[in-house]
Parts: sequence; C-alpha cells; structure tokens
Amino acid sequence: MNFSEELKERTRQTEEIVCKWLPKHMGRQRTIVDAMCYSVTAGGKRLRPLLMYETFRMFGGKTDAVECFMAAIEMIHTYSLVHDDLPAMDNDEYRRGKLTTHAKYGHAMGILAGDGLLNWAFETASAAFDCEESADGLKRVAKALRILGEKAGIYGMIGGQVVDVESTGQAVDEETLLFIYELKTSALLEASMMIGAVLAGASKEETETMEQIASDVGKAFQIRDDILDVTSTLEVLGKPVNSDDRNEKTTYVTLKGLEKASEDVGMISERALARLASLPYKNEFLTELIRSLIYREK
Amino acid sequence: MNFSEELKERTRQTEEIVCKWLPKHMGRQRTIVDAMCYSVTAGGKRLRPLLMYETFRMFGGKTDAVECFMAAIEMIHTYSLVHDDLPAMDNDEYRRGKLTTHAKYGHAMGILAGDGLLNWAFETASAAFDCEESADGLKRVAKALRILGEKAGIYGMIGGQVVDVESTGQAVDEETLLFIYELKTSALLEASMMIGAVLAGASKEETETMEQIASDVGKAFQIRDDILDVTSTLEVLGKPVNSDDRNEKTTYVTLKGLEKASEDVGMISERALARLASLPYKNEFLTELIRSLIYREK
Repeated sequence: MNFSEELKERTRQTEEIVCKWLPKHMGRQRTIVDAMCYSVTAGGKRLRPLLMYETFRMFGGKTDAVECFMAAIEMIHTYSLVHDDLPAMDNDEYRRGKLTTHAKYGHAMGILAGDGLLNWAFETASAAFDCEESADGLKRVAKALRILGEKAGIYGMIGGQVVDVESTGQAVDEETLLFIYELKTSALLEASMMIGAVLAGASKEETETMEQIASDVGKAFQIRDDILDVTSTLEVLGKPVNSDDRNEKTTYVTLKGLEKASEDVGMISERALARLASLPYKNEFLTELIRSLIYREK
Repeated sequence: MNFSEELKERTRQTEEIVCKWLPKHMGRQRTIVDAMCYSVTAGGKRLRPLLMYETFRMFGGKTDAVECFMAAIEMIHTYSLVHDDLPAMDNDEYRRGKLTTHAKYGHAMGILAGDGLLNWAFETASAAFDCEESADGLKRVAKALRILGEKAGIYGMIGGQVVDVESTGQAVDEETLLFIYELKTSALLEASMMIGAVLAGASKEETETMEQIASDVGKAFQIRDDILDVTSTLEVLGKPVNSDDRNEKTTYVTLKGLEKASEDVGMISERALARLASLPYKNEFLTELIRSLIYREK
C-alpha cells in the first residue's frame, strides 16, 4: 500500500472507533443525541485520534484504553468547532459544505450540543479506567486524562480561543500570534501525541519529546495554512483564498512576508522530523503523516 | 451551635474549598479566568458540595480527594447557570442581583467561560487521583468521576435542559415534567451524594440508597419551588412571585393543584428522610439540611 491508500484505510478505522463511542440511546433526549452525532459525523480528517494512535503504536502500546481517548479528543475538537460557529462567535452557517450544528438545530441546541460533546468526551475518556486493573495501569489513564483536560482547557485550546476572540480587529504582534497558534492549534495535537505515548507506557522524557514535536507540527501546519491562503487557488484549496486579507487578519505571512514564512515552515518542520527520528522507536507512517500535513498543497 | 449557625459555618468552609480550586494563573487568559471566578463567586448556597461532604462524613470518609469533587460539582452547577442565562437560552441579565456573566463580559466570553468551567471541573476532579496510591483508591476516584460525568451529561443535567428548552411554550404532561425535574434538578444532587458515598468507601447498595434519597430531595425541592411561587410574597421570597403563571409555565402546581402538590412534597420528603434514617450511619446535620431544603419558606 502506498501512503495515501494507507492513510485512507487508517482514517476509516479511526472513524469507526470514534463512531463506536458516540451516544446511542435516544429517549427524550433525541434532539441533542442527533445534533451531537451530526456534528461528529459531518466529516473531518480525524487527525487528532490518528496522531494519537500512531504515537501509541510507535511506543508499542497495547491497551484498549487508547480507543476511549481517541474518541474523546475528536469529540473535544468537534465541540470546539460547534461553539466557534455560533452567532456570537464566528457566526458560520456552513462548514465543509454542510449546515453548522446551530444552523440545523437552532441556536440553543448548538450551545447544548457543544456542552453535551465536551461532557461526553470526559465520560468516554473516563470509561478507559475499565480497561485497567493494576495501580500502574490506572495511573497511566489518570495521567492521560489530566493531559486531555489541561490541553483542552483555559491553559490550552480554550485559552487560545479567548485570546483570538479578544484580538479580532486589532493589530497582533508576533508573540501574540504564536501564542494563539500554540494554544488554538498545537494544544490538542500535543494532547493527542502525549496521550498516545503515556498510554503506551512511554517515559516522561519521551512524552515531553512528543509534546515538542506536536507543538512544532501545529505551528508549521498553521503557518502553512497562512501561506496557502495567499498562494493557492479556490480550485486547489476547495475554499476561498485571500480570506485573511479580506478579513484584515494578522497572519504569519502578513507579519513576516511569504519568503520568511516558507523558510520558517521548513525549519520548524525539519526540527519536528529530526526529533521524531532521534527516538529509538520507528513508525514510518507517522513520519509520512507529519510530512504530509506540513508540506500539503491544500 | 444551632442548625442555622452550623449551616452558615459549614457553607463558609465549603466556599473556601471551592475557591481554593479556582484557576489562579492569569497570563494572557486574564479575561476568562476573571469571568470564571466572577461567576463562581457570585453567590449561591453551595448546596451540592455541602451535600457531598456531609454524605462523605456520614460514611466516615477520610480522603482529600473529596475536596476536588466538591469544587468540581459547584463548577459544573455554575457553568450550567452561565450557559442557561445566555441570550439564546433564558436571556437573563441578572442573577442574584448581579449581572450575569455574558452581560458583564460579553456574549462570546459567556460561552467560553461556561466551556472553561465545565472543562476545569473535570481537570479539578482528575486532580483527585493524586490523593490515592492503591488500585482500590484509584478505582474509587474513577468511579466518582464516571458518576460526575454521567449525571452532568446528556443522560443527566444537560438532558433535562434539552427537554425543558424543547417544552417551552408547549403543554407539558406530568411524566415530562417529572423527567425534567429529575434530570435538571435531581441529577446533580444525586451525583453529589453518590460521590460522597463512593469516595468514603460506601457499598453499591448504600450508594444507590443515596441516589434515591437525592432524587427525592430534588423532586421535593422543585415542587416546593412551584408552591412558593404561588403562595409566597415578593418580600419573603426575594424574587417576584407568580412568575410561572405569567410565563404560562406548566408546574407541578398547575398540573395537580396546590393541595395535592403540598401533600406530595410531604410524602416524597418523608420517604427520603425515612431512607436516610434506615442507614446504620448517622449525620444529624445532613438530616436537618435536607429537612430545611424541603420545608423551606423561601
């Protein structure tokens, strides 16, 4: 199998695991269960659970607990999109060509479905304790849970969202922009790779290395996004280009110029790949996956 | 000390524990940290952590883990109020005489502060694992965490909220009304008393008994609320009376009449108190606390 076939197959398997952990019982809560499932199954690259699983596999992980966390991180990612799209936030009616959750189910249900998904994510992650019997196993799950909470919360993803909201319509300096990228984009990638490592029994140092790699991957991914918004076309990208310019948004490209931005993506990316290569474990698919994210054309 | 002095002192202690676990580090996230602390410290009876602690004490609990869960349940209760008050939900500008969170910090920050509190609640509860070393202790914390998630989520509090939102402006039958009361009001009280029991090492049967007691307490509390809305005065209640009538809201009183409602509060309350008395453990303050909630005049 070549990389793109393997990616397709592994994405399909990841999607299966995520869907397995969606709420099933309808009852009188049918509307919110519907809305939650709608938002999770509306598409997406399943990048975070995929990165988690491939890191887990690289460190030789065995426990089924990883499945709960794969589903949980995708639910957290999804809830953040549902709430981001709300009228009081980005006010988006469409995402990936489909109605956003509040556009389909109403504004109140958009708020509640997001809350429901965030809560359900922690319920799902907590189910991982059932996979362990020993104190060591239970402690690994507890450690993974704390990483999930921290990276999703106000000192992680939500914190990035807050600073982004507050910076809208204002001049943003480089330090603030990188802070937003780190928290809004990198934090959940860090959680993914760190949790994969922790559940597989990786050491503290190895887990920190994965955190650094994920931080760089997030940063490079986001800068590449800024570059593509300037250099790509509607046909290739599948969404309007030059949107940052129209929205007068500060990006890495507006701050540093196109050339320096491209140079920095290369530098940050190679640093991440070198760190990955320095580990005594190998997962070629993970290396390829990271490379494909950073050097993507769309 | 008489009961009301003791209640005051124990509420103060509970408040101290809740505040101890609020986020402290400000950084660039100052606004959301401010908004979260504002909403949690804006007042309230601290009933849920109080019920948790008194149940824990009745079963002879010792672990510090209970403090994390006391704070966590109050954060979940608070986030639910913050999101309930949003313009797309109840659209309330004031609560307990103070500006609601979104009225003070803006609509987007109201959404994010609620998300932040829900996430922080699970972060705080997860910190309880640090209090345990043995597999048994860790499993008790894991069990408490699963109860917290379930009772706060779509099959608990959020589910009640969903059905309540969908029932607004519609005729509601008794079964639906009791479903809403059970999920919106009882679920978090059940979580409180069950978690107190579990962390103290109570048996499965004892934990289920506490669940039944809390379910009845929630129901009686809510029906008493409906009664006071009809029979009390603005001066005594501290908020406008007959609000249900003005809002054309179906309540237990509109469905069953005042006399039957009072009769049922008595019946449900005595059932809860009898169950509590049937346990081989005693906590007179807890008994008094439950009695005061159910038979309150405001």
